[in-house]
Amino acid sequence: MPHSASAAGRSAPSPRPARGRREPKRAHPDHEVARGLKGVIATETRLSHVDGERGVLVIGGFPVETLAPHAAFEDVLFLLWHDRVPTADESTHLRRDLAASRAMPDAALPLLRAAAARSLPAMDALRMSAATLSLSDPAPDDPSRSANLARAVRAVATFPTLAAAYARLCEGRAPLTPRGDLGHVANYLYMLSGDTPSPNSTRALETYFNTVVDHGMNASTFTARVIASTRSDLISALVGAVGALKGPLHGGAPGPALDMVFEIRRRAAASGRSLAEEAGAWVRETLTHGDRVMGFGHRVYKVRDPRADVLGEAARDLFVDHRDRALYDDVRAIEGVVVHTLGKLKPGRRLETNVEFYTAMLLHGVGLPTELFTPTFALARAGGWTAHVIEQLDQDQLIRPESRYVGGWDRTWA
Amino acid sequence: MPHSASAAGRSAPSPRPARGRREPKRAHPDHEVARGLKGVIATETRLSHVDGERGVLVIGGFPVETLAPHAAFEDVLFLLWHDRVPTADESTHLRRDLAASRAMPDAALPLLRAAAARSLPAMDALRMSAATLSLSDPAPDDPSRSANLARAVRAVATFPTLAAAYARLCEGRAPLTPRGDLGHVANYLYMLSGDTPSPNSTRALETYFNTVVDHGMNASTFTARVIASTRSDLISALVGAVGALKGPLHGGAPGPALDMVFEIRRRAAASGRSLAEEAGAWVRETLTHGDRVMGFGHRVYKVRDPRADVLGEAARDLFVDHRDRALYDDVRAIEGVVVHTLGKLKPGRRLETNVEFYTAMLLHGVGLPTELFTPTFALARAGGWTAHVIEQLDQDQLIRPESRYVGGWDRTWA
Repeated sequence: MPHSASAAGRSAPSPRPARGRREPKRAHPDHEVARGLKGVIATETRLSHVDGERGVLVIGGFPVETLAPHAAFEDVLFLLWHDRVPTADESTHLRRDLAASRAMPDAALPLLRAAAARSLPAMDALRMSAATLSLSDPAPDDPSRSANLARAVRAVATFPTLAAAYARLCEGRAPLTPRGDLGHVANYLYMLSGDTPSPNSTRALETYFNTVVDHGMNASTFTARVIASTRSDLISALVGAVGALKGPLHGGAPGPALDMVFEIRRRAAASGRSLAEEAGAWVRETLTHGDRVMGFGHRVYKVRDPRADVLGEAARDLFVDHRDRALYDDVRAIEGVVVHTLGKLKPGRRLETNVEFYTAMLLHGVGLPTELFTPTFALARAGGWTAHVIEQLDQDQLIRPESRYVGGWDRTWA
Repeated sequence: MPHSASAAGRSAPSPRPARGRREPKRAHPDHEVARGLKGVIATETRLSHVDGERGVLVIGGFPVETLAPHAAFEDVLFLLWHDRVPTADESTHLRRDLAASRAMPDAALPLLRAAAARSLPAMDALRMSAATLSLSDPAPDDPSRSANLARAVRAVATFPTLAAAYARLCEGRAPLTPRGDLGHVANYLYMLSGDTPSPNSTRALETYFNTVVDHGMNASTFTARVIASTRSDLISALVGAVGALKGPLHGGAPGPALDMVFEIRRRAAASGRSLAEEAGAWVRETLTHGDRVMGFGHRVYKVRDPRADVLGEAARDLFVDHRDRALYDDVRAIEGVVVHTLGKLKPGRRLETNVEFYTAMLLHGVGLPTELFTPTFALARAGGWTAHVIEQLDQDQLIRPESRYVGGWDRTWA
């Protein structure tokens, strides 16, 4: 049975009802809406520090530049989970533990097959299959810190197996069994291609994993913490985080940065003009259309994104002996022209090369297809998510903001 | 290979590093940490208004008291999704649409069986199976408003099928096929028991669904909005919300309120003392142990929770002809003594009967086992979640707060 609202009770769509209507008093009448929570410090964390004004990123006490290019990802996980560098024994133990935990839950494979049959985004496949980790939890009701650390190990160990299996299923190939003799990052590359990766590729991807493992209170990490703040479980929090990272405003769009490079190369080859000429033309054209040049500028960093340097150097090292060395040289040439042209056309905006640009180079260089860029980001960020969930559960503080009502008042259900 | 941190670089676990260490400047040095985001207005919404100071809850422009006891849940869904009451045709159309969308995705049943075999919490089963809605999305890449409204219909229609199937599987019974001739709430009761529910039971549960369909920026709704704020998809946002509602600090613990009633009854029967005496003794005992009396008081409402009145009256109407009428009388007697005793022992705290107390009565009265209380809350709140996701996607504003770093500084990776 339908009902009709009392016309008299329907206010204009204004946040302030007209005089004479009953307006419930607001709890905080003087408060502004903190749109997007920009500038609101939601929590304390010991995991990472982002200083966008100075271009500084500290991960577990280490400036990203000193940590990312040298550390094994497993040791960075230990650092985040335990707030210190592991001893030799602890490092060996965690590697063994992670390597032994890579098998996907039984329920995951049918979901990945069904997702591949429909060509769903890889992030949806990762989200659905990661959710089934609850089915293989040896102690699903245990809320202790040690049980959550064990869950963190299993989740981080399993994510690459899920992503690689999905990538192969989408290509009509059978998933590969993880190889326990390889490290976390090398095994991911192996599970994708079936080949033992080169030390160069492994180091490049490991540097990428370390660089993006954590980054302050980004939207996916925040999602994981809000979920954990209700005393929910670690897997629920991770599944929420995967869902948030899927969004193009967060997971980023490293694909378009690469597309730009290939498009400029194609145009130069077709026109006979230089890369520099085509790159400059491309930037002017993009800005004329009111579009953003992908791969330059960042919401938080007002100066150069420190991750861009780390990944730029990692990409340089990767391409030293690479079959596609020319691509790297072209990319650096194009980058120079783009930054120069943006500087002229958008003065004062400091549109430096950002992490997406070098991410695209590096991930392409180790052989990943564009569709795997965001899922691969998720495999790395899972280290940060798990550590944040455990930190949030330790803090045990419900995260529950307020909202300002801007709807109608005093409608009557007839 | 293990690494060791530079000992000199390891600061004390204080938020302020010692003098002489390099401390990156904070973006907002004067800002306090907004712990739990309490009092922070994260967004505007037209969906509901919670005024805890005055005990007011407005849902889509209607005071909860005028809406919840009278409306069909389907019409409340229309109200939240479209910001107006449906016409007769629109109401019929939405009912038909919802009824036709109740079948669970193919991939859900094996997950529910696997979860039942392990006796997982029903919220985990709901989360995992709801995630597979992506597999039956007719247009998974369509980000349009109309596609999201269609997703909202399918999700809200499917949730009761998933929850009821899981409940039956856990009891070793086969899931039932939804009945298209029943309304949303009546069909849920049917799918649980296999019996056509009485009009009294349906009305009581429908009033419950309407009462809890939305409640400002609670943690699960906020989770859904943070996920949607990255331009991720509606199903990802809902799955995150289910994960957040699972947490006992949010999904609530209506079970313990009922346990209290049964325990006081058991003691009175055993001791021969009156319910009132046992209830008073129970409250004093609980407070002496430093425990909280479940079912009384609320984080937001400083006066009487308006939902408690609505649900109290719905429970009264439900029990008028109920086989367990005596339980209702006992509950009201116990409630009176508990509120009175709390008033004496905790003066100034205004520990009124809250929504959990009457929720427990009402859900028990319509035949739901305690394990289904939180999932049933989720089935109702799914209406609010879907509407908030669509509103957030319309606003298109990334939600990304900041954090304050309290870890070490300038460690060196050796």
